[in-house]
Amino acid sequence: MRRFVAKNSKYLHFITRSFSSSSLESSSGLFPQVTLETINPKVLTCEFAVRGAIVTHAMRLQEQLKQNPGSLPFDEILVCDMGNPQLLGQQPITFFQEVLALCGLPSILDEVKHKTSSVRGCTCCSIYTFVSSIICSADSIERARQILDQIPGRTTGGYSHTQGIKGLRETIAYGIETRDGFPSNANDIFLTDGASPGVHIMMQLLLRSELDGILCPIPHYPLYSASIALHGGTLVPYYLDEATKWGLEISEIKSQLEAARSKGVTVRALVLSEENQQQIVELCKKEGIVLLADEVYQENVYAPDKKFQSFKKIARSMGYQEKDISLVSFHAVSEGYYGECEKRGGYMEVTGFSADIAEQIYKVASINSCNSNITGQILTSLVMSPPKVGDESYEVYTAEKEGILSSLARRAQTLEDAFNSLEGVTCNKVEGAMYLFPRLHLPQKAIKAAEAEHIALDAFYARRLLEETGNVVIPGSGFGQVPGTWHIRCTILLQETKIPAIVKRISEFHKKFMDEFRD
Amino acid sequence: MRRFVAKNSKYLHFITRSFSSSSLESSSGLFPQVTLETINPKVLTCEFAVRGAIVTHAMRLQEQLKQNPGSLPFDEILVCDMGNPQLLGQQPITFFQEVLALCGLPSILDEVKHKTSSVRGCTCCSIYTFVSSIICSADSIERARQILDQIPGRTTGGYSHTQGIKGLRETIAYGIETRDGFPSNANDIFLTDGASPGVHIMMQLLLRSELDGILCPIPHYPLYSASIALHGGTLVPYYLDEATKWGLEISEIKSQLEAARSKGVTVRALVLSEENQQQIVELCKKEGIVLLADEVYQENVYAPDKKFQSFKKIARSMGYQEKDISLVSFHAVSEGYYGECEKRGGYMEVTGFSADIAEQIYKVASINSCNSNITGQILTSLVMSPPKVGDESYEVYTAEKEGILSSLARRAQTLEDAFNSLEGVTCNKVEGAMYLFPRLHLPQKAIKAAEAEHIALDAFYARRLLEETGNVVIPGSGFGQVPGTWHIRCTILLQETKIPAIVKRISEFHKKFMDEFRD
Repeated sequence: MRRFVAKNSKYLHFITRSFSSSSLESSSGLFPQVTLETINPKVLTCEFAVRGAIVTHAMRLQEQLKQNPGSLPFDEILVCDMGNPQLLGQQPITFFQEVLALCGLPSILDEVKHKTSSVRGCTCCSIYTFVSSIICSADSIERARQILDQIPGRTTGGYSHTQGIKGLRETIAYGIETRDGFPSNANDIFLTDGASPGVHIMMQLLLRSELDGILCPIPHYPLYSASIALHGGTLVPYYLDEATKWGLEISEIKSQLEAARSKGVTVRALVLSEENQQQIVELCKKEGIVLLADEVYQENVYAPDKKFQSFKKIARSMGYQEKDISLVSFHAVSEGYYGECEKRGGYMEVTGFSADIAEQIYKVASINSCNSNITGQILTSLVMSPPKVGDESYEVYTAEKEGILSSLARRAQTLEDAFNSLEGVTCNKVEGAMYLFPRLHLPQKAIKAAEAEHIALDAFYARRLLEETGNVVIPGSGFGQVPGTWHIRCTILLQETKIPAIVKRISEFHKKFMDEFRD
Repeated sequence: MRRFVAKNSKYLHFITRSFSSSSLESSSGLFPQVTLETINPKVLTCEFAVRGAIVTHAMRLQEQLKQNPGSLPFDEILVCDMGNPQLLGQQPITFFQEVLALCGLPSILDEVKHKTSSVRGCTCCSIYTFVSSIICSADSIERARQILDQIPGRTTGGYSHTQGIKGLRETIAYGIETRDGFPSNANDIFLTDGASPGVHIMMQLLLRSELDGILCPIPHYPLYSASIALHGGTLVPYYLDEATKWGLEISEIKSQLEAARSKGVTVRALVLSEENQQQIVELCKKEGIVLLADEVYQENVYAPDKKFQSFKKIARSMGYQEKDISLVSFHAVSEGYYGECEKRGGYMEVTGFSADIAEQIYKVASINSCNSNITGQILTSLVMSPPKVGDESYEVYTAEKEGILSSLARRAQTLEDAFNSLEGVTCNKVEGAMYLFPRLHLPQKAIKAAEAEHIALDAFYARRLLEETGNVVIPGSGFGQVPGTWHIRCTILLQETKIPAIVKRISEFHKKFMDEFRD
């Protein structure tokens, strides 16, 4: 039991550290080999809020609820912290699920074929009908056959090419071509375990020391800041403008670029998602900066007047070719309307690098074993090549996809309205992605209370919200924000039936919070 | 078409570089953003032979065979370069395949249950019989149900805990306890995409600069050397003794440790697989060195008098507890008799670190999204908890496993005998793992010929073997070897029916090679 307590204290300790910045107990007397003083300082300094203190705290409360029901002022943890739709009740897309299952079990495919012909006419319980009612529409079967034919040895258990299976990359390249109207080459595609491995590879490639910088939007998903810190570079921030729905002024990027250069920092790359695309492409070309396009939300667009346009499409439309601009696009199956987070699939498309640099990227990808598991590879090919009009699955597929997207849009609207109705809270519309980032204008007394506990105001708010209601949101400081402003990040992914409960909890909590701290 | 040629030239160029060390063509005029001079020099210097030049060369020849059959002196590439059994014809283990398929499609489970009761008595084509004949034995169904119950939301599409799903880690911890007879804690287990992510995390943690060193056996799998180079540390080599079947003298480690220290290098960790275990544990404890135990071959033991013993078991048997020694054990589902390479599963068990260091490891694991895809997680739990006596699957499972292991032992013996029968070649017995590492004693004339082409002698030999016979082996220099000795690495994994062809090709090639170069 002593050991179990010791293990638990790890998490308690983590929380203590993050919430009260108390000095660390040194255990170096007991474990002499490795201490905080002797590990890589880059590891020590980097932060990753989305799996950080508040999430760990929530897990502990969840465990407490399980062990001692009734011991907390709420009976359920409602997680609005993570883009994890299927865990929150969303069902997988049928077509994707069918094809993946069939690919995992090629013998079913053969049996289906065999039995179909042998039992034709048996009406009492037609096997084909049975099997097809459980697992397969005709195009799922056909697609699974095609995919298995593309896999060397028709097995999902063999290592594939460092960049992933050629045939699947060809399907994806074709999907990109169809999307953009410009060529895409399977040799430029690396199938990755989500977007992270691709980001790490590019950081490893570009960052030589803290004198190399990466321009990152603030706020942004902290994978970038964490990866830059871990690989020893400098994050050069540029701020998105909350007043214009997180819009981007190109002048802000230019002035941050100049500021970085005046400090001796070489800006190697710029991270961004879809904003002011032509100006950005122009700037990157002119300044010799690699464009890292985070395009994981290409299928999560809710605003009716918005349509996804890839940076590659924009650059090519402007007449820029490979030689003009180095451009890496990231996509992941954890996002999108399907939300297949733990299948771990994705790709990066790497264009505009010379052959010798492409070779170095390939080498690092090999060393990192970056290529995703075969299920993730197959799923990535399905996402980029979904059922088409006329396919048996098309109707179900479209209904599922539109059902999810329209439900997400409704949830986003309800939560946005709820936040905007709160005293001192303003919240921009979600036009894509999966998150709201409402701003908290909190009273001085709350600021003082947070200071007294040595934690950021938004972390103080988020912790109170969690402890009093069981709602988990992430403090905005984990994503970056204009100094002196405070936000929380809230996903729109919890099941629609749970949204009223979230709204009620947040509204009641916020009123109580303001009553306690109002100046 | 121009673009295609340019892409191809990437690979040609890679080969040229590796095989003739010709100076690099600079393409910086065309692609100004990123050049070899401006990327991270650590990326430039690291090497990864197992997916390096000879493999790329082989892929090109394979493509050539496909495009122009008959254009090469052989009609098939025989890959003896990679531990990739399923691609070489090995069938997956039925039980694993069944459970994974069922977990991927929970509706089948429910249907099976439902239909079984509703169609009882229908004998014309009992659905239950049909379904079970294709996909499931009773214990597969039961296991899949248990696993789904352990997964939050019963879905394989949701993000899991940073360390992987708790219930699966508990199964694995129980498997480790059963294996070792000593406790294992699910909180110490990180489920990883193969072994690589765990290795990278530990290197990131331990290596601050080139003044931190890692003791590595020579020869060794180049993941370690590549990862050390990429993270900027120093590889401190210790040589295994070929004369004693790659045995390990503890005095060799001690003298290399002293030599490194005299150069100002702090040795942080020691990598090894199973050898002189008690002495190693003692040394690591005494010198404050982290023990990184590469235990991916724990199920590949062929020698009848050998049995796998984990380092944790050894350490605990010696009376050493957590506080005495920092020990990380790596395992991966790509190895073992099942060889599920592209499922990407594995674990690392992290013991003997203080709470503050454990917290840092957890953070880096989060940032790297190290936890494997859910299929890999499930498979890792199955591997550590296979069917038991009395389970319906047990007999088939045991027959499959023993069939594979005994076939591997036969293949190893045939290849070992073949290498030993060659002029100037000596080859140690394989007692585990999947590789032979025969030593080439080649004549001076061959050495001179290789020098004239500016490549290592073993790379020269491997390239000639590939070009003349289509057999792919990896030059020993990629794994390290005593300076002045030359080896090739050859897997024992090609289908048994292909082994005679390999033996014939190698024997004929070697005779011809010796006839050409004999002094």
